[in-house]
Amino acid sequence: MAVAEKALSYGAFSVGDGRPRIGVRVDDSVLDLSGTAAAHRRPYADLVAGPVLNPLMAAGPEVWAEVRDDAREWVLNEPLIALSDVTPHLPFDVADYVDFYSSEHHATNVGRIFRPDGEPLTPNWKHLPIGYHGRAGTVVVSGTDVVRPDGQRKAPGDPVPTFGPTRRLDIEAEVGFVVGVPATRPVPLADLDRHVFGVVLLNDWSARDIQAWEYVPLGPFLGKSFATSVSAWVLPLAALDDARVPPPPRTEPLLPYLEDAGTAPWGLDLALEVEINGTLISRPPFASMYWTPAQQLAHMTVNGATLRTGDLFASGTVSGPTREQMGSLLELSWGGRDEIPTGAGKRTFLEDGDEVVLRATASNGVSLGEVRGRVLPSRHTR
Amino acid sequence: MAVAEKALSYGAFSVGDGRPRIGVRVDDSVLDLSGTAAAHRRPYADLVAGPVLNPLMAAGPEVWAEVRDDAREWVLNEPLIALSDVTPHLPFDVADYVDFYSSEHHATNVGRIFRPDGEPLTPNWKHLPIGYHGRAGTVVVSGTDVVRPDGQRKAPGDPVPTFGPTRRLDIEAEVGFVVGVPATRPVPLADLDRHVFGVVLLNDWSARDIQAWEYVPLGPFLGKSFATSVSAWVLPLAALDDARVPPPPRTEPLLPYLEDAGTAPWGLDLALEVEINGTLISRPPFASMYWTPAQQLAHMTVNGATLRTGDLFASGTVSGPTREQMGSLLELSWGGRDEIPTGAGKRTFLEDGDEVVLRATASNGVSLGEVRGRVLPSRHTR
Repeated sequence: MAVAEKALSYGAFSVGDGRPRIGVRVDDSVLDLSGTAAAHRRPYADLVAGPVLNPLMAAGPEVWAEVRDDAREWVLNEPLIALSDVTPHLPFDVADYVDFYSSEHHATNVGRIFRPDGEPLTPNWKHLPIGYHGRAGTVVVSGTDVVRPDGQRKAPGDPVPTFGPTRRLDIEAEVGFVVGVPATRPVPLADLDRHVFGVVLLNDWSARDIQAWEYVPLGPFLGKSFATSVSAWVLPLAALDDARVPPPPRTEPLLPYLEDAGTAPWGLDLALEVEINGTLISRPPFASMYWTPAQQLAHMTVNGATLRTGDLFASGTVSGPTREQMGSLLELSWGGRDEIPTGAGKRTFLEDGDEVVLRATASNGVSLGEVRGRVLPSRHTR
Repeated sequence: MAVAEKALSYGAFSVGDGRPRIGVRVDDSVLDLSGTAAAHRRPYADLVAGPVLNPLMAAGPEVWAEVRDDAREWVLNEPLIALSDVTPHLPFDVADYVDFYSSEHHATNVGRIFRPDGEPLTPNWKHLPIGYHGRAGTVVVSGTDVVRPDGQRKAPGDPVPTFGPTRRLDIEAEVGFVVGVPATRPVPLADLDRHVFGVVLLNDWSARDIQAWEYVPLGPFLGKSFATSVSAWVLPLAALDDARVPPPPRTEPLLPYLEDAGTAPWGLDLALEVEINGTLISRPPFASMYWTPAQQLAHMTVNGATLRTGDLFASGTVSGPTREQMGSLLELSWGGRDEIPTGAGKRTFLEDGDEVVLRATASNGVSLGEVRGRVLPSRHTR
C-alpha cells in the first residue's frame, strides 16, 4: 500500500518532559506536526501547535483535508520519531460524552440475561438510538491504568447493599466519534462528515454489580463513571470512506429525521478484536450495528441540543450475532455463568492485573489502532 | 443588616460590547472585581480577570475568604454599577453536570403518578442518592430563552411514536452546587466545603413526553438535554453557614461513607419560590431534601471518579410534602390532570411565551437570587 493511501491518525504526544505537541502517526512512527507546520509556515500552524487537537478539530473539513495533504508528503520527507519514544496524551479535551446502545445483538443479549422471561428489547429500541450522558472528566488515554472501583453492590438475594470493590468489572468494546465543528441546529443525517473529525476505539469500563443496583430509574452512573479509555490516535473519518456499508435492514419504519434509506450509508465495516492478557477472546463486527453514527448525531441534536468541539459519542457495545463476536464479558460469560479462557487463566469478569486491548481494522485495510488498559486493585483493599 | 453581613455573590458580566469581567453583586449593584483587584494590585487579581470564575473557584477556601474580605470593603468604598446596566454571562465553564433525585417527596410523587399500583420509591432510593449525568454544553445563564424541544413522543395508547414539539414542557426547581477545587480521591462528607465554591438556583427544563418514551433502560437523555438554566450570580457556600440544618430522619441505615449522623449537618434551610407569568405557584422547602450535598458529593466520588473545577451537581427537584410545595408541573398538575392558575391563564404544562422564575432565600436572610427563562416556540412549528 502506498503511503499516500495509508491511514494517518492524529494525536498529542510528548518526548521527555516536553509540552504535548500534535503528531501524525503512520505505522510505528510519529511526525511532529506542530514543529513541521510551524517550520513550513503553514497558515494552520497555530491550530496544530498543541497541546490538544481541539483547534484543528474545530476548523472543519477543508482545513482537515489541507493538513492531510501536507502530512502525506511530510511523513515521506521529514524526520519521524519512533512511536516507542513518545508518550501519548489524551488527544482532545472532551466536552460532553454520550454513550449509545446501538447494537441489536448486544441489547438483545443483555435483555435475555437480565429479563429471561420478557421481551429482550424495550419497545423504544427500534424507534430511536437509546443513549445517555457519561462522565467526560474521566475519559482517559490508552495505557492509563484503571483502578477497580468501590461502590454499593447488592445481589438479588442480599437484604441490603454492601460496600466494597466491584466483583463484576467488565469491558465494553466500542467505537467513539469525535465532534470537531460545533452546531447550534439539529444536524441532518447527510451532515455527519461536516461535524465529525474522527474516530477512536473506546473501552467503556463497567462495574456490573454497582450498575445493576443503581440504574433504576435514571440510568448508569457510578457503574460507568470511574473510567472510559480511548485510543491515543484519532483516525480521520475521511479515512473510512471506502469502508462505508449499508446498515442492517430496518424492521420498524423510521421517523423522517432518522430515515437513511436512499442516503449514502453510514454503516462502517470495521473488524474489532478484544484481547485479554494476550488472548483474543472476541471479534465484534461493527457492520452489524443497527444504528449508524449519522443517526446517533441526528438524534442527539434533534431536540435543539447544541454540539461543541470535543463532544464524544460512542456506539455502545459492539456485539455480533455469535458468541465469539460479543463485546462484553457480561455477554461472553452469559451473566457470569460461563468461564472464558485468557492468557492468565479463566475469567468471568476481570481480575486485578488483567490487561485489556481492543483493536480494529476497517475493510479498506485502515487500522484504527488500539486502546489498552490494565486493572489495578481497588483503593479499598490496598 | 450591615453590608459586612450581606451576601455577596459572584458572576461574569459585560457592559456594552466589552469582554466579560468578574463582578460581585450586592443587592441591585455590581462591583467590577476584575478592575478593582487589578487596581489594588491584589495577588489574586489574575484569578478574577475573567471571563469566567473558574480560576478563582479552583484557588480554594483561603483565597475565597481573602477575596470576600476585600469585596466586603470595596462594595462600600468603590464605585458600583447598577445591576440593570450589566449583561450577565454564564458565570463558570461547566465541566461535568450531574443531576440528583434527592427529594423523597418528589420521588414519591413521581412514583405515584407513573406507577399508581406499585411502591412509589425504588428499592435503592433510601440507600444511595440516585443521580445521572446531564449535558454540560447546554447549561445556560438566567435570562436565556428556552426553545420548546422537538422529539419523539408516544402516549401509552399510540401504536407508534410521532415527531414534533413536546406537549409536556415542564420545569424542575433545583439548587446546584459548583465545584471549585478538583479531587482525585473520594471526597468524605466533612470535606464538602473544601471543594464546593458556591450555590446556584437551577431550572432543569424537562420534556415529559420525550422523557417518558426514551428513558427505559438508560435514563433521561433528550427530554432534558436541550437546556438547563442557572442563576447568573453564584452565592459562596460559606454564606449559607448559618442556614445549615439537620436533614430529615433517615429511615434506613446508611453505609459508612454516607453516614452523616454525628457530623456537622449539611441540610440547608432555603425557601424556594416558583413563579410562572408573575404568579407564585409553589414554595418548595429545601430543608426537606433527604440527601444532602455532602452525601451527593461523597457518593459521586466514592468509585474513584475525579472532580474538576466547574463540575456542577444539582439537587434534583425540590418538593415538600404538600401540594403548594411541589417543584414541578408534573406534580402540581398531578400528571396533567389538574390545572394550575398562572398570570396568563391556567396551565398543566408550559405554553409558548410563558416565563418561569425561581427564587430562594436562606433562613439566615441571604438571597440566592433568581433564575429566569421564557419559552419560545419550537423550531418545527415556526
